[in-house]
Amino acid sequence: MVGGGEGAFIGNVHRIAARLDDEWSLVAGALSSDAARARSSAAALRLDPERSYTDFTEMARREAERHRVSGDGIDAVAIVTPNHLHAPVAHAFLDAGIDVICDKPLALTLDEGRLLATKARDTGRFFGVTYNYSGYPMVRRARALVRDGRLGALRAIQVEYAQDWLGEAIEAAGHKQAAWRTDPALSGHAGCLGDIGTHAYHLACFVTGLTARSVSAELSTFVAGRQVDDHVQAMLRFDHGVRGTLWASQVASGAANGLRLRVHGDRASLEFDQQRPDELLLRDQGGDETRLRRGRTPAGPTEHLRLPGGHPEGFIEAFAQLYRDAAQVIRARRSGDAAPAAAADLSTVDDGVRGLAFVAATLRSSAASGQWTPIEADR
Amino acid sequence: MVGGGEGAFIGNVHRIAARLDDEWSLVAGALSSDAARARSSAAALRLDPERSYTDFTEMARREAERHRVSGDGIDAVAIVTPNHLHAPVAHAFLDAGIDVICDKPLALTLDEGRLLATKARDTGRFFGVTYNYSGYPMVRRARALVRDGRLGALRAIQVEYAQDWLGEAIEAAGHKQAAWRTDPALSGHAGCLGDIGTHAYHLACFVTGLTARSVSAELSTFVAGRQVDDHVQAMLRFDHGVRGTLWASQVASGAANGLRLRVHGDRASLEFDQQRPDELLLRDQGGDETRLRRGRTPAGPTEHLRLPGGHPEGFIEAFAQLYRDAAQVIRARRSGDAAPAAAADLSTVDDGVRGLAFVAATLRSSAASGQWTPIEADR
Amino acid sequence: MVGGGEGAFIGNVHRIAARLDDEWSLVAGALSSDAARARSSAAALRLDPERSYTDFTEMARREAERHRVSGDGIDAVAIVTPNHLHAPVAHAFLDAGIDVICDKPLALTLDEGRLLATKARDTGRFFGVTYNYSGYPMVRRARALVRDGRLGALRAIQVEYAQDWLGEAIEAAGHKQAAWRTDPALSGHAGCLGDIGTHAYHLACFVTGLTARSVSAELSTFVAGRQVDDHVQAMLRFDHGVRGTLWASQVASGAANGLRLRVHGDRASLEFDQQRPDELLLRDQGGDETRLRRGRTPAGPTEHLRLPGGHPEGFIEAFAQLYRDAAQVIRARRSGDAAPAAAADLSTVDDGVRGLAFVAATLRSSAASGQWTPIEADR
Amino acid sequence: MVGGGEGAFIGNVHRIAARLDDEWSLVAGALSSDAARARSSAAALRLDPERSYTDFTEMARREAERHRVSGDGIDAVAIVTPNHLHAPVAHAFLDAGIDVICDKPLALTLDEGRLLATKARDTGRFFGVTYNYSGYPMVRRARALVRDGRLGALRAIQVEYAQDWLGEAIEAAGHKQAAWRTDPALSGHAGCLGDIGTHAYHLACFVTGLTARSVSAELSTFVAGRQVDDHVQAMLRFDHGVRGTLWASQVASGAANGLRLRVHGDRASLEFDQQRPDELLLRDQGGDETRLRRGRTPAGPTEHLRLPGGHPEGFIEAFAQLYRDAAQVIRARRSGDAAPAAAADLSTVDDGVRGLAFVAATLRSSAASGQWTPIEADR
Repeated sequence: MVGGGEGAFIGNVHRIAARLDDEWSLVAGALSSDAARARSSAAALRLDPERSYTDFTEMARREAERHRVSGDGIDAVAIVTPNHLHAPVAHAFLDAGIDVICDKPLALTLDEGRLLATKARDTGRFFGVTYNYSGYPMVRRARALVRDGRLGALRAIQVEYAQDWLGEAIEAAGHKQAAWRTDPALSGHAGCLGDIGTHAYHLACFVTGLTARSVSAELSTFVAGRQVDDHVQAMLRFDHGVRGTLWASQVASGAANGLRLRVHGDRASLEFDQQRPDELLLRDQGGDETRLRRGRTPAGPTEHLRLPGGHPEGFIEAFAQLYRDAAQVIRARRSGDAAPAAAADLSTVDDGVRGLAFVAATLRSSAASGQWTPIEADR
Repeated sequence: MVGGGEGAFIGNVHRIAARLDDEWSLVAGALSSDAARARSSAAALRLDPERSYTDFTEMARREAERHRVSGDGIDAVAIVTPNHLHAPVAHAFLDAGIDVICDKPLALTLDEGRLLATKARDTGRFFGVTYNYSGYPMVRRARALVRDGRLGALRAIQVEYAQDWLGEAIEAAGHKQAAWRTDPALSGHAGCLGDIGTHAYHLACFVTGLTARSVSAELSTFVAGRQVDDHVQAMLRFDHGVRGTLWASQVASGAANGLRLRVHGDRASLEFDQQRPDELLLRDQGGDETRLRRGRTPAGPTEHLRLPGGHPEGFIEAFAQLYRDAAQVIRARRSGDAAPAAAADLSTVDDGVRGLAFVAATLRSSAASGQWTPIEADR
Repeated sequence: MVGGGEGAFIGNVHRIAARLDDEWSLVAGALSSDAARARSSAAALRLDPERSYTDFTEMARREAERHRVSGDGIDAVAIVTPNHLHAPVAHAFLDAGIDVICDKPLALTLDEGRLLATKARDTGRFFGVTYNYSGYPMVRRARALVRDGRLGALRAIQVEYAQDWLGEAIEAAGHKQAAWRTDPALSGHAGCLGDIGTHAYHLACFVTGLTARSVSAELSTFVAGRQVDDHVQAMLRFDHGVRGTLWASQVASGAANGLRLRVHGDRASLEFDQQRPDELLLRDQGGDETRLRRGRTPAGPTEHLRLPGGHPEGFIEAFAQLYRDAAQVIRARRSGDAAPAAAADLSTVDDGVRGLAFVAATLRSSAASGQWTPIEADR
Repeated sequence: MVGGGEGAFIGNVHRIAARLDDEWSLVAGALSSDAARARSSAAALRLDPERSYTDFTEMARREAERHRVSGDGIDAVAIVTPNHLHAPVAHAFLDAGIDVICDKPLALTLDEGRLLATKARDTGRFFGVTYNYSGYPMVRRARALVRDGRLGALRAIQVEYAQDWLGEAIEAAGHKQAAWRTDPALSGHAGCLGDIGTHAYHLACFVTGLTARSVSAELSTFVAGRQVDDHVQAMLRFDHGVRGTLWASQVASGAANGLRLRVHGDRASLEFDQQRPDELLLRDQGGDETRLRRGRTPAGPTEHLRLPGGHPEGFIEAFAQLYRDAAQVIRARRSGDAAPAAAADLSTVDDGVRGLAFVAATLRSSAASGQWTPIEADR
């Protein structure tokens, strides 16, 4: 693991989630670029001091060497640093021939992301990106329902992600998470857009199997002194004439972590709210509403993995799903087996690039007074 | 009443709502332009045959004459015809010196609406427009909460109105309501936009006390062969930097009559869903969510009028509120009293014009590829 | 109408509901036993002073006479007095040969109720009892689902009715409604049990088509100084081994008017909450949950009478349904036609007696320390 | 760990939950009494084969010896066997001087439970019972709200636990979990009552701080051929005149794991539904309803341990809380420190005995036709 030293939020989530299903254990880390903090963090996690590094390039080199020499180097690196380091760290490990699991966003810019995708392709390494909300069983079920035609021909998508934790200028008051997330140097030029807008966009694409072709957007910054946007509203044109709206806000009073997706087809629509992740609403054209619940029949393949229906699962389990899927895929690659079904649901470096293309186009559209702006196709 | 003959939906609602609080009774009508249908409709409602007309201009003239001669002409006319007749009928009654209560939209075009507003001003008649959703007690409470600063400085508005009854081409299959609502000659060039988008827009303005200055919109028509839009997505710029999104659809599978408003301020946000009209959600910045319920303390002035809390009220009562308010206002005008409090909550011809300005700008923006288009200020 | 003078809650509801569907109009009344209040109430409602009475026996006599002489006596009397007058008034009108629509409870005691049932049978008059919650379209749908076997063989019923308006000793503070409802002389020995427990019991029987055979109950009085129970908990044994629990409380903090029914069969269960009366939840054994909504397909016969789905209906409409049904039934009786379908859903004097039998058995069981006590079968 | 071999449900939950917060790791086990299954289960979990036992008494003896000899014996045993082994295993480890964490129920009978409580007291060992639902942060908050008087003087409690997984005779069709849970020899004479009724009872006591003094109950068995009850309805008399109802069913069609508690005081009431564990509803007498959400202010002490508000936690985290609390308490005992705050929220052998006393009294009451039966006080 690179990043995730003491006090980090998402690093700890990755660590707990990765081992939840006994697929991964943490054996090495560059947990902090601060030597003392790296050391104490490693000690708290009972890492072998030999494998606690302060420099991620050294870690890449030494773990690759271990592989060659004793065959016990890490199976993959998990990158959980602030955003600006995602790409440099990923490059280092790809160069060392080590598989990568990287938090989103892939990089600070679309160009940077593309370079990484090229490198991943060229090195042939596994490269997963942890769009964690795609790990929820009911999100998987939603995707399957769309794919199987249960909704009919798609017409419109509404996706939103509302939080209120940046409703005040807490970055100016010493809140660490807020500070790096609102600092363009560490987080990129997209604030709310990059932090949660991309999750919303990915969720919409993941469930529908569609990609947006162009965007008309307006970014706003409501909190005085803030250097990045904290509020995003956008309209989207997806493949096949599907229309969409996206709203993301970190100043939406009273919202905790309100990621919500609605997809409308000509036969039915569905709704997912990540604050009630064990449920999925399905509404028939002209008809009634069914609340599908995880673990009840007819259930999808990931719904019975851990707990029966009615025993609530949450954020950790969704994250764990990604790590479980990654382990299966990596195992299959190494043994030369065909890719497991899970491979189809894993987000990769290409999805990461798509997220960056969405961010770039949205920034440009907003700067151009909402002009419809193409989201650059993959090259 | 003009319009509302047998089989009409909204005419019957007006009739029942108007008398609910014993403020109005139906004594005359031009219920249909078809003489036989006018007659049979009038008979079914036990109207005096003398006061059942087939021609609304005749009705205006004769009822005005009654006023002069015997003092028992109608107190006001309720206009519940298809949209294209709203303005002609209103002109006729204003010209005859009779107060008007008109269903929305005011007219088919902004210019037509402005002429009507001028006429209303010049004649000095009362002119109410029945934006019925503003009659819900909890919408009134929402408006009071915003006005009293409970939400703090407003930042963003999300409003949506989703239905699915036009999800298929039922107008081609002989569905009468669908036929006139999708016929530009009878309903105007705005389809879903005019029919329900305007309700959504009005609700947002009514609750927040704001007006949108410009709009960036995209209209779509999903059902083949349909001549008007059936799906609207738009971004709005309101007064004081408040941002907004509006989504209206009549092809949203599974949606019955989903008018929903969310308003975010820097202290709190609120949410109203007209399908649960006795409730209002209030969410505090960084805090919890309160479900305010009609008729519980602290309650607003219109909440205890008919039924105690927990005894559900609905659509009819909201409509009735407008008729009750109109009666009070008209009574005060005639007796020379100061306008009652209810006057502040009644929508008038000027609100009707604002709705038409919104429609006109939205049509223009969509035609101009979503360009931000000013919503013309009142003249 | 007998009762329902100025300031009365339920009388006004009856009046508005009765005319909602244009089936009834109020033409005569003994609105109060206080002559001045009777007069002013009648005037406010524009009753013919000739037909405003202070004595209900006089009203019965004079209206019967009108029938004989001029054929324009009332079609039926609506009894909306406090409970202790229900039976005497009903007797008077039955004796005069006039059909009766009576608020629940039928009488103060089971014996009194039986006398009334006998009288109704002997006189051959129509006798409806307004268990208003059975008028909701989704309650009708629930009943049809059970009857049609959608739930399979029934196993268990949970019914509850929670309010908080008697959470404090407001009867001692001059609250009129509270005063007569907690006074055994006016309301009977059952407090909460008679006022709302009977509604809960009726709803359970109405939807399931079952009757309870015995009850084990515990009544409590939480508010000091109160002379009747304000809290009821009971277990029930229904026909065919079906088990049930009933909880009713008027001291349940935070509850407005929480009447809620759940019925479990071996194939599915259903849930109805009168505070969301346009919905009905259906849950399949081992499966998911469907939220049935009024006016969506497949819909029951009473769902489309007034407003389309998504346009909320409420308490008034449910009450109106009973008056509409009664009008149909009375019309058919007079014309010698077969009873209309509505007749099957109307509660009659026999249902009223069943409610009193439930009350009597529950009082006895509670007094006998919860002993299982038979609910006397109809004689 | 004793029990929890391959295919076990709750054993795996204990294992994952115990390590979630890095307080415990699994180092030894008697995972199955079947030697081969014990071995393969241990191997799958990478247990040291030296510390994989087939006989729990041997495990107790050898681990105690390890303690004496090398100081690396287990810190505590987790007992996750079928019910009939809970007591024998606990005795073995207490005798060996090892702290115990035991799944509920403590034992098959009240007498057996009391012997165990005596043994625990005499040996001075720590003895925790995993009533897991008391680990939810919002259950802890509920308990604090009651304790702090937010609800006022308590009046009534409604608790229910509804499942449908035993709605059919799946025990006869080879379903293992169902088989042992409906076999009196393995599970005790109480079926649904012991399995989930006790959870409901414990939750009510835990949140309110009260104990029931007597019970009037009716057990039913709806599925033909079943040897134990599958449906429980009961009335309860708690301390201080508080009244209660309890309903538990494993044949409630459509219910997944519906554990729900409502507590009514004279100032407010609260409601907790374990299927939405991050929420708690608080309703004020005569007022509105607040939805308290985990991790929002004002928050309780356990709400911020793992994930911020809006990031759903679930069943695993609640279980983990008990293991975290137990670790803290055990650590404090060993270091001679004062008991940490967590100690107050941990359920012990005495709570286990209280649960058995409830079961015993409920069985007796049901057998005695619902007679109010005292729940024996602790001795």
